[in-house]
Amino acid sequence: MEKIARQCMLYDFYGELLTEHQRRVYEDAVFNDMSLSELASEYGISRQGVHDLMKRCDKTLEEYESKLQLVARFGKVKETVEAIQTCDDLPTIKQMAGEILEEL
Amino acid sequence: MEKIARQCMLYDFYGELLTEHQRRVYEDAVFNDMSLSELASEYGISRQGVHDLMKRCDKTLEEYESKLQLVARFGKVKETVEAIQTCDDLPTIKQMAGEILEEL
Repeated sequence: MEKIARQCMLYDFYGELLTEHQRRVYEDAVFNDMSLSELASEYGISRQGVHDLMKRCDKTLEEYESKLQLVARFGKVKETVEAIQTCDDLPTIKQMAGEILEEL
Repeated sequence: MEKIARQCMLYDFYGELLTEHQRRVYEDAVFNDMSLSELASEYGISRQGVHDLMKRCDKTLEEYESKLQLVARFGKVKETVEAIQTCDDLPTIKQMAGEILEEL
């Protein structure tokens, strides 16, 4: 997965577990595509400070994922639900629903 | 929801975020139905110590739930998938699948 796409997904699941300050900077970097210089100027910290903060956030979010596996689990569930949406065979749909319930 | 059922669900989602020691005691209390006295004897701590540990674990798990809402979200998804399993009307199934995708 592309780095930015992974950051978005991790943030969607675990962003609430970051501090308010971390969330603001991380959102501006990942969702608003702000550069290190722009972030440094916006938050009155050095470029190195922004870099370190982003690295720490990435690490924190990956640690939560390694423990809870929500991105992985939800990804599988989502794929199967999408398959149900495009499937017209009832027995196959029931089987896929069963697979989801095992995953949950 | 009954207290023990809620503890089970919270633990299923967030148990990995407790310490190894907390996990062991909590599992014995919630899943193996051990009493305070049994736990105190098993882990060489006082009954009050066990009580405090359980309270701290409950609080930690509820805090994660208040931030991530996994029990609530997965509960809704699970209900809808179960409805898909017992439904034989394709248009209704597609609609329910759409609802799940919005929730995820």
